[in-house]
Amino acid sequence: MLEDLKKQVYEANMELSRRGLVTYTWGNVSGMDRESGYFIIKPSGVAYEALRPEDMVVMDLCGKRIEGTYRPSSDTATHIELYKKYRDIGGIVHTHSPEAVAWAQAGRDIPVYGTTHADYFSGPVPCTRNLTPAETEEAYEKNTGLVIIETFEERGLVAAYTPAVLCANHGPFTWGKDAAEAVHNAVVLEVVAGMARSTELINPRALPAPENIREKHFYRKHGPDAYYGQGS
Amino acid sequence: MLEDLKKQVYEANMELSRRGLVTYTWGNVSGMDRESGYFIIKPSGVAYEALRPEDMVVMDLCGKRIEGTYRPSSDTATHIELYKKYRDIGGIVHTHSPEAVAWAQAGRDIPVYGTTHADYFSGPVPCTRNLTPAETEEAYEKNTGLVIIETFEERGLVAAYTPAVLCANHGPFTWGKDAAEAVHNAVVLEVVAGMARSTELINPRALPAPENIREKHFYRKHGPDAYYGQGS
Amino acid sequence: MLEDLKKQVYEANMELSRRGLVTYTWGNVSGMDRESGYFIIKPSGVAYEALRPEDMVVMDLCGKRIEGTYRPSSDTATHIELYKKYRDIGGIVHTHSPEAVAWAQAGRDIPVYGTTHADYFSGPVPCTRNLTPAETEEAYEKNTGLVIIETFEERGLVAAYTPAVLCANHGPFTWGKDAAEAVHNAVVLEVVAGMARSTELINPRALPAPENIREKHFYRKHGPDAYYGQGS
Amino acid sequence: MLEDLKKQVYEANMELSRRGLVTYTWGNVSGMDRESGYFIIKPSGVAYEALRPEDMVVMDLCGKRIEGTYRPSSDTATHIELYKKYRDIGGIVHTHSPEAVAWAQAGRDIPVYGTTHADYFSGPVPCTRNLTPAETEEAYEKNTGLVIIETFEERGLVAAYTPAVLCANHGPFTWGKDAAEAVHNAVVLEVVAGMARSTELINPRALPAPENIREKHFYRKHGPDAYYGQGS
Repeated sequence: MLEDLKKQVYEANMELSRRGLVTYTWGNVSGMDRESGYFIIKPSGVAYEALRPEDMVVMDLCGKRIEGTYRPSSDTATHIELYKKYRDIGGIVHTHSPEAVAWAQAGRDIPVYGTTHADYFSGPVPCTRNLTPAETEEAYEKNTGLVIIETFEERGLVAAYTPAVLCANHGPFTWGKDAAEAVHNAVVLEVVAGMARSTELINPRALPAPENIREKHFYRKHGPDAYYGQGS
Repeated sequence: MLEDLKKQVYEANMELSRRGLVTYTWGNVSGMDRESGYFIIKPSGVAYEALRPEDMVVMDLCGKRIEGTYRPSSDTATHIELYKKYRDIGGIVHTHSPEAVAWAQAGRDIPVYGTTHADYFSGPVPCTRNLTPAETEEAYEKNTGLVIIETFEERGLVAAYTPAVLCANHGPFTWGKDAAEAVHNAVVLEVVAGMARSTELINPRALPAPENIREKHFYRKHGPDAYYGQGS
Repeated sequence: MLEDLKKQVYEANMELSRRGLVTYTWGNVSGMDRESGYFIIKPSGVAYEALRPEDMVVMDLCGKRIEGTYRPSSDTATHIELYKKYRDIGGIVHTHSPEAVAWAQAGRDIPVYGTTHADYFSGPVPCTRNLTPAETEEAYEKNTGLVIIETFEERGLVAAYTPAVLCANHGPFTWGKDAAEAVHNAVVLEVVAGMARSTELINPRALPAPENIREKHFYRKHGPDAYYGQGS
Repeated sequence: MLEDLKKQVYEANMELSRRGLVTYTWGNVSGMDRESGYFIIKPSGVAYEALRPEDMVVMDLCGKRIEGTYRPSSDTATHIELYKKYRDIGGIVHTHSPEAVAWAQAGRDIPVYGTTHADYFSGPVPCTRNLTPAETEEAYEKNTGLVIIETFEERGLVAAYTPAVLCANHGPFTWGKDAAEAVHNAVVLEVVAGMARSTELINPRALPAPENIREKHFYRKHGPDAYYGQGS
């Protein structure tokens, strides 16, 4: 079932590890098939060295396992909320990559300090509030997804234009049109987070890049007037 | 004698080196066999490249060498105190890994800034006091172990739930149910220590993660209600 | 056409990637042939793993593509302005290498804190002003080149003696007598930028190296009295 | 001539590069033969990839080249002063390794923050004063050596017990009983320098390790009562 997607999701998980974003089993990638309404996700706590495409778990958006012998990632319920809310998302990544985690632990949005950031994210990468004890108790992973959505709603953010979020005291989620793009955005987020930390160390009063530079770079790569790359 | 444990302890020492936690010979791993009361430890000052399973030294808890041609690690007496006090520990690691050493040299506990930390350690990773001149003079390595125990006693910490400590102006010890888990915890501690440093650089007023998040993550992985991974 | 130069420019692009200065496609190197007036540049957005010498694009200084099937780098217009202004430049590099970007995002020149810097750059590495909204709108990449030139003119800098610049909130450009030397300078800039950040963390009141040390080191490697290396 | 020493010095130079302490050609190692009074040093500005044992240059302590087709390292005169003054030194290293350079550029001694430092250096790693314009003009490299010696004399330091120095706004020199030990000390210095920077970031009021700890660790590894390692 969905053998091509299984391979894509497997490959995306392995790429996450190859890019150095994962210690032990601390990360997971999923990919969505909108036609069937099923998505595929890494099993929970299985070592990357042992992972095989056939170990990927097929799930539906009600949280029911459709295929697979392993338990799905413990963060599956978060992925479900994001897939249900954002219909243009085809892949989701969660990591504990150190630079992004540091911002999440600091409880701060990552400001748009330069074009590297603006090439991928149309504004600051937002940091959510913490879950309340009641939310944690009731359904931690599902409510993690809902608090991400709340953050985007309250700030009027478009998920496709800001494909990353920091969960307070936890770590980042990123997404994209498919699993590979979600991994790409996770790598970029890690680089951008590290650069932002260094920027503030060099100049504690550093200002975000001016709006004209931010918009120029974002729309050089996105939307109808994009001219970066070889076109599509 | 204890050939399987020798291989495990050898492998754990090599893994410590492969994970980049060791410069030259600055690290040692031991593993305990509770049945015989013997433990096995890396020889002192032997290069990792030259190390073989048969070079591991078999010791008893009185500090007597039972088997092996090499002298045991110079930190053997510290391992002994920990094995004697904490009966549920089966492996111990000591390193000079840079991020953990920096906290030890700073003389500070590592606060629980996020879920990466809370997944492994149920509270702050404690930093001991310094040894007095008399303690240093009398029996430095043994007293290092006793001061670790004193730290845990005074704070009411359970060794199995906080499997790491920072020895002031020195470096970390970690432990686990066996040598491999102790190494795993040493790797995690190094990542967590680096993230905590970055967190404070990004936000000097950063607060520890709220208790509900800390408990949720610790008990997602530990105890009877754990649901991370594939079960046991 | 210009097959040797194509290979050189290809090699220089690959070296940039091997040296770890490039994430994904974030970098480009060009090389100039002054005789024909043509230069060769990396295509836009093509992965380094897929790049071949024959993919390099031949351009003239009016921005016309002379040979090649790919679109040239999106930063081509910046390269053109620098080649037109500085006749002794034979290679140009642009990267988003993290340490140099951090200074660019901080909006600060890199002070000459030591001999590592002085061996390559005769003074601080300058940071430009930001482009105005009008400049961004009208011709972003071309005006990036003109603002670099403005920075050098206003400060009376000689491009050959300060072969690097930081574009505010963006990142570095470096250059040299050919593509290989431009890459060499990009690597050095990254190291020097990181050292300068660390220097200020260790001593927030650190002073630049005294003039006698700076001049000694620069002229040990450059000009008629140079005595570093094996001569030419 | 001195073929064994040539191989040792060649190997030590390659080890310096393998350990990641060298960018391009920024480093040199020499080794001394006290019997003949000759020492062997890396040629100036030759790439490590191209280096061969037979490229090493044989010099005497008057600065005369005894054997070899290449020019010796531009820092040769500094090595000579140290070999002349400290008769128990058999190998010298100079690098621009980033963490040590940062302290040199900050103009600060590296405090003894912990046992990693105390295992190798009996006190702070000293930072010299800058050379005066006259000293720079007259004989830069020779005077660099003399200022190192002045620093040790004024502070009453024993070279064999503090086998490292930081030259202000420049970088580190380290030494040892032979070339290999000098490289070993250069690696340790780099690690220790980075740990000390992190220590101060975590606790700006961090204090040096107490004297009893410092002495214990230094004499655990050095002198007649040493008990680290397998003896000699």
